[in-house]
Amino acid sequence: MTAAEIVVLSGGTGGAKLVRGMADAAGPELVAAIVNTGDDIEIYGAHVSPDPDLVSFWLADQIDERGWGLRGDTFAVMDALRGLGEEVWFNLGDRDLAWCLRRSRMLAEGLSPTAALERLGAAIGVRGRVLPMSDDPVRTWVRNPTGWHPFQEFMIRERAEGIVEGLEFRGAEQAAPSEQALAAIAGARVIIIGPSNPLASIAPILAVPGIHDALLAADAPVVAVSPIVGGETLKGPTASFMAFAALDLNADGVADFYGELLDGMVADENVGRLATLQTDTRMHDASSRAAVAEQTLGFAEGLTG
Amino acid sequence: MTAAEIVVLSGGTGGAKLVRGMADAAGPELVAAIVNTGDDIEIYGAHVSPDPDLVSFWLADQIDERGWGLRGDTFAVMDALRGLGEEVWFNLGDRDLAWCLRRSRMLAEGLSPTAALERLGAAIGVRGRVLPMSDDPVRTWVRNPTGWHPFQEFMIRERAEGIVEGLEFRGAEQAAPSEQALAAIAGARVIIIGPSNPLASIAPILAVPGIHDALLAADAPVVAVSPIVGGETLKGPTASFMAFAALDLNADGVADFYGELLDGMVADENVGRLATLQTDTRMHDASSRAAVAEQTLGFAEGLTG
Repeated sequence: MTAAEIVVLSGGTGGAKLVRGMADAAGPELVAAIVNTGDDIEIYGAHVSPDPDLVSFWLADQIDERGWGLRGDTFAVMDALRGLGEEVWFNLGDRDLAWCLRRSRMLAEGLSPTAALERLGAAIGVRGRVLPMSDDPVRTWVRNPTGWHPFQEFMIRERAEGIVEGLEFRGAEQAAPSEQALAAIAGARVIIIGPSNPLASIAPILAVPGIHDALLAADAPVVAVSPIVGGETLKGPTASFMAFAALDLNADGVADFYGELLDGMVADENVGRLATLQTDTRMHDASSRAAVAEQTLGFAEGLTG
Repeated sequence: MTAAEIVVLSGGTGGAKLVRGMADAAGPELVAAIVNTGDDIEIYGAHVSPDPDLVSFWLADQIDERGWGLRGDTFAVMDALRGLGEEVWFNLGDRDLAWCLRRSRMLAEGLSPTAALERLGAAIGVRGRVLPMSDDPVRTWVRNPTGWHPFQEFMIRERAEGIVEGLEFRGAEQAAPSEQALAAIAGARVIIIGPSNPLASIAPILAVPGIHDALLAADAPVVAVSPIVGGETLKGPTASFMAFAALDLNADGVADFYGELLDGMVADENVGRLATLQTDTRMHDASSRAAVAEQTLGFAEGLTG
């Protein structure tokens, strides 16, 4: 086991920014992210793993300003596909495609998703650990008024529109948790649930058998950073998912969802029944990311697990 | 059936140039190429079909000056794969990769290779017909002193080195011939065997059950253009394959190989026992390609099948 780490459960952008802030605040060698793979998709002959990739690109300082993909990437392949008549609904840069094709090759050669991501990460300078929640396939499906959709299709083709009527993490019950993730949780100094969509991004991680129990059993305090700021979600369709789960769209609702897992909450509002660090949780640049991370860390270290 | 066509059996570069010349000489609407698919390879999540693609790129005036691939293509994906540690032994441009990924998608959706290539061709302006020899998988394997290799691996990784000790067209016996190819042969005005490697590029076409017999039964004269110029092959390892088949490296050897199929031969040397058009068969620019095509056409039309 590595030295006691800061473990961050993460989905996409919000969680990834906090992971990056933690790496700045505490040193990347002490950060391990456990990341949702429910958004994974096989497309263009490649295995795309959006959330783990996003966290990796952030940790390698390779994230593009557009908020996803590799910095300065080109789009020759997608442009050419469009030129050939393909409906390109899922956009992927050329270097991003290469990254995903390389992963497919490694998976075909028998490497686990965890090992493949570690090798990919080493090649672009990822510092810190990015751990897929499981090496087994778990796929998030969302039902809206037009039917059931794999997560990416819901987000992109359906534009995340329509009320959420159903949410399934297919394969989760049969999936084994990442051993590295379980070990990181058991040995963690603090455990942070990042400001990602609780239902769509964090719930798939918690649905993998063993992870929820490992979090409960961990010595480390568990603290969630609320993804809701000023009563709104900063990005994505968190509101629809919170409504589906009959949760209030505020830190209380987030605390309700995580329930007994939490020892504390970081939010821009107070949560009466739980230790709360009330602070500005917006992370719009490197210094605000590090500040939120530092405050969250200090707050969590003052709690007991 | 379309109007009586000029049918050209083709492998890679030599055959493709002659097909292009025929399109200039006779009009592309009268040209149908029947093309070797034994060199096909699944790589980068894509289905690559080098010979049919080469003919298509030539007919669309999209061939790059380097002699393969799409003109002005970029190589962002291959460069990125190398950067990630992949040994990129098979080079493919970004637009070329998109072309092959698009084909994979169409094949996965149930289209035949023939139908997929027709749609791809329409998207880049291919004029004339490019017909894969079969919609079933046939794979050319070559044995050299280091063992058996799929054709592309022999050509690229093995640099076509070492004497050829074996040649197999795996899957050919079980493959059905392209119906479009059979119809084109039956209705052809003339049938030309392009200046491609007889063993590695034309023999796979002839190995598909039904094609050899259709050529014998055709009313049209069958004329081969020798790939051997000045006693040497202009491109590729034809010499090794001719030696493997115990054929002389000259037009006589080519005539020996095609045997009863031929009604005539176009070469820069005379073939005693067969009607021969002796001419300069080098095709280094558009006018020489059209000239070789025109002369071959005139010569063939003077023969009976």
